[in-house]
Amino acid sequence: MPIRAVVWGENIHEQTNVVVRDLYPEGMHATIAAALGEDTAIEATTAVLQDAEHGLTAERLAKTDVLLWWGHAAHGAVDDAIVERVQKRVWEGMELIVLHSGHYSKIFKRLMGTPCSLKWREAGERERIWVVNRGHRIAQGLGESVELPNTEMYGEPFAVPEPLETVFISWFEGGEVFRSGMTFQRGAGRIFYFRPGHETYPIYHNAEVRQVLRNAVHWACNPAPAWTTVAEAPNVPVDEAKEPIVQKGPRLHADGEEGFR
Amino acid sequence: MPIRAVVWGENIHEQTNVVVRDLYPEGMHATIAAALGEDTAIEATTAVLQDAEHGLTAERLAKTDVLLWWGHAAHGAVDDAIVERVQKRVWEGMELIVLHSGHYSKIFKRLMGTPCSLKWREAGERERIWVVNRGHRIAQGLGESVELPNTEMYGEPFAVPEPLETVFISWFEGGEVFRSGMTFQRGAGRIFYFRPGHETYPIYHNAEVRQVLRNAVHWACNPAPAWTTVAEAPNVPVDEAKEPIVQKGPRLHADGEEGFR
Amino acid sequence: MPIRAVVWGENIHEQTNVVVRDLYPEGMHATIAAALGEDTAIEATTAVLQDAEHGLTAERLAKTDVLLWWGHAAHGAVDDAIVERVQKRVWEGMELIVLHSGHYSKIFKRLMGTPCSLKWREAGERERIWVVNRGHRIAQGLGESVELPNTEMYGEPFAVPEPLETVFISWFEGGEVFRSGMTFQRGAGRIFYFRPGHETYPIYHNAEVRQVLRNAVHWACNPAPAWTTVAEAPNVPVDEAKEPIVQKGPRLHADGEEGFR
Amino acid sequence: MPIRAVVWGENIHEQTNVVVRDLYPEGMHATIAAALGEDTAIEATTAVLQDAEHGLTAERLAKTDVLLWWGHAAHGAVDDAIVERVQKRVWEGMELIVLHSGHYSKIFKRLMGTPCSLKWREAGERERIWVVNRGHRIAQGLGESVELPNTEMYGEPFAVPEPLETVFISWFEGGEVFRSGMTFQRGAGRIFYFRPGHETYPIYHNAEVRQVLRNAVHWACNPAPAWTTVAEAPNVPVDEAKEPIVQKGPRLHADGEEGFR
Repeated sequence: MPIRAVVWGENIHEQTNVVVRDLYPEGMHATIAAALGEDTAIEATTAVLQDAEHGLTAERLAKTDVLLWWGHAAHGAVDDAIVERVQKRVWEGMELIVLHSGHYSKIFKRLMGTPCSLKWREAGERERIWVVNRGHRIAQGLGESVELPNTEMYGEPFAVPEPLETVFISWFEGGEVFRSGMTFQRGAGRIFYFRPGHETYPIYHNAEVRQVLRNAVHWACNPAPAWTTVAEAPNVPVDEAKEPIVQKGPRLHADGEEGFR
Repeated sequence: MPIRAVVWGENIHEQTNVVVRDLYPEGMHATIAAALGEDTAIEATTAVLQDAEHGLTAERLAKTDVLLWWGHAAHGAVDDAIVERVQKRVWEGMELIVLHSGHYSKIFKRLMGTPCSLKWREAGERERIWVVNRGHRIAQGLGESVELPNTEMYGEPFAVPEPLETVFISWFEGGEVFRSGMTFQRGAGRIFYFRPGHETYPIYHNAEVRQVLRNAVHWACNPAPAWTTVAEAPNVPVDEAKEPIVQKGPRLHADGEEGFR
Repeated sequence: MPIRAVVWGENIHEQTNVVVRDLYPEGMHATIAAALGEDTAIEATTAVLQDAEHGLTAERLAKTDVLLWWGHAAHGAVDDAIVERVQKRVWEGMELIVLHSGHYSKIFKRLMGTPCSLKWREAGERERIWVVNRGHRIAQGLGESVELPNTEMYGEPFAVPEPLETVFISWFEGGEVFRSGMTFQRGAGRIFYFRPGHETYPIYHNAEVRQVLRNAVHWACNPAPAWTTVAEAPNVPVDEAKEPIVQKGPRLHADGEEGFR
Repeated sequence: MPIRAVVWGENIHEQTNVVVRDLYPEGMHATIAAALGEDTAIEATTAVLQDAEHGLTAERLAKTDVLLWWGHAAHGAVDDAIVERVQKRVWEGMELIVLHSGHYSKIFKRLMGTPCSLKWREAGERERIWVVNRGHRIAQGLGESVELPNTEMYGEPFAVPEPLETVFISWFEGGEVFRSGMTFQRGAGRIFYFRPGHETYPIYHNAEVRQVLRNAVHWACNPAPAWTTVAEAPNVPVDEAKEPIVQKGPRLHADGEEGFR
């Protein structure tokens, strides 16, 4: 069965900015999905901000293995209820790949618990992405570095928690560095942040960037069934304890009572 | 200068439950603050849910090095604006020690990005807290394990992100285990979660638990000045780049324009 | 192409101890390999201490995706040159699954950089292995815990570095706990330590333990080609720098000279 | 009581290379110790390769809180028995700060378990060290970055395990990046690797580098007593189990027998 990937796009600058529209006439999400679709083991579809429920109904999320997220101008327009729904699905085991300016999306900030702030400069400067761990699944097929002739700069400090793994670090022409590829885990879900992707440059037409996206989908995908009870805090009654015990001492809760929240 | 610790208490069961009131006639927060105050290098004060702004004004938080948090029955009654304020101070470098049922507090869940769920049972069973790293600052002065004759059980899975360090793991009479001491980092702030503390048992009168609380305050405290800009995402203009660069290619943003959020 | 797993066994107690021989008449390695072979995606072979070069020639290791290691009585008899060879293959990307008393093997201690010490007791007591992250690939198909009626106890502190992930934690009848499943990364290779496996009990006949072994092989396996230069420290000459630079200041090394080691 | 720091230096190029001698007429170790001594809370002494037992007797190490290590040309000349002695002290809780070309020292490679390889170029190029976590104890008193006009380049991939924390990342004029400040934990000991320090440039006369060295000593120092039993694997007899248990099933070991190693 192919991996079911959904590429979520904000789909605003493609409609309002001629530079972006010329680069991505069908939308960045469509270009990204096409990059994934070059691998027959991935079945990629798209969803956009403007869709009903942003295209992320509970039914669809339940059938999504990996969600890719690109947003920039309209983070605030994403419905909080949808963000909570996506967050719960990540906890249950759906993987999330956050792209470029998605660092400031509601979903990424909620999952990280940090401001996710950084430095930036839109000068079309050169970026060289160094592969820190050449054996990592996400770096497969790359050389020692990937060079992008024109990019928006993102600079450290990038206010995220210490990652599980640092996969890529970028060098910028103007003198900054950035941890451009990092992995995290939240509940059963794994998260990959990947920096490149500014909309005024043809980043998602770059062959190596497209390779990383496909790699990341493979890395992320986990065949485990959804951990649907991940957010529950069940009481284990005394008579269901794994070892025989007897009730001792005073209690707050009566038998069968729910815990506080 | 002493370390300025604030012990925050929900202060509800001490008022409403006779068992808890008998154990903590002045409130659990007062008992915890007294435990800290046995160390002259710590200056401990208290704040409670019922105080104006829950006792956590911006002025007070600015002068707080370490905040300890105990809550259980009224997590939902904590004002979201205060939670955001505390979260920002953690990012800036205030340390946070989350106690027992504080695992389900708004502030802890927001900082972790996960449900923070767990199993539980209130049977007064025996708990043995094993020290995983005997050289850790937080374990100083303890033996190989700490034994609590009567506790509420918390069992794995505890849905938090992989910690920086696992300091304690608990064994329970009824057959469960739990990662009872874990450290995390969020922005400039460090976080320690410490499991013991159920209000119907005299946990905070236990000498070893009190030692851990003092140790954790010392471990947590960081003399660095507040990183007040941690949540800002500054633009670095081309003419202020560390290396000389020239503007290339198309842009979304005009000079001096703020980024999207 | 199936995953090529090699199960390495010390193969001593199977020959010298009647209890062990009765449980594993063809050797523990053979039983473990048979467990892996129940999955047609895995092609499992065996190697033992008594083989020439312990069955781990350079040619064979080059064609091994995942190596499983069980040793106990004869860690010291493993040739240092073979240990170095295995370590280099792990750095290059061969995955390593270390079983039970393999915690004290030369290869595990060299990869961890720590004593890998622990507490132990051979009393046939009950062990309950709790799944910390139910969504982890290695835990797939398990319930919330796995129960082993008779095991050797291993107790914390287990002197290993902080792991990437803690997958399992064990509860023991006699009062101890242990981090029974942990993942690490060394170079391009991933490492999984899995605690159960004492030779006087039928641990590797247990269906859930066998499931974990198969899961771990799938988790570990990385399709990336070997990172054969992982231990090299190449000089990058000035005229091959990615950015144009000129030689400045004094130097220790003449052009083309090797670095110190 | 002041923190007892020992600065270990190889002390070879200071004797044999006129450039290095002019920069460090009393040896690099003396300059580093002087930098530490500017803080009255630190008591810094020195030891060199040429001393009896390399200046690192068991008695001296037992009284050392933090050991700083600089070596380059003669890693192979360091006695294996002394390396083992230092490693054991790190496990027990002595902290270790490894400087620059010390990445290839025996002690660092043994503690990491990886090749610790990297790219390098001696071209006197500019390095900018970015502070990743401005609130970290080790970065105290620094601005957003530290600039060194002439350095030897070290480039990724740096083959070390994923660190606990990434504190600094360097940008190089020639196009590379490097994780220049990382923390690790091995047993009770904490380790900080700090990249700058090439001997043909006046790196250890730089005020900000000296600040980092002092910060790192404060960060590293742990008041816990030595964990002298860290490498022992004690048997816990049935009659000393924390919970009452009875011997069940067959055993390999007779009562009181030592475990295998």
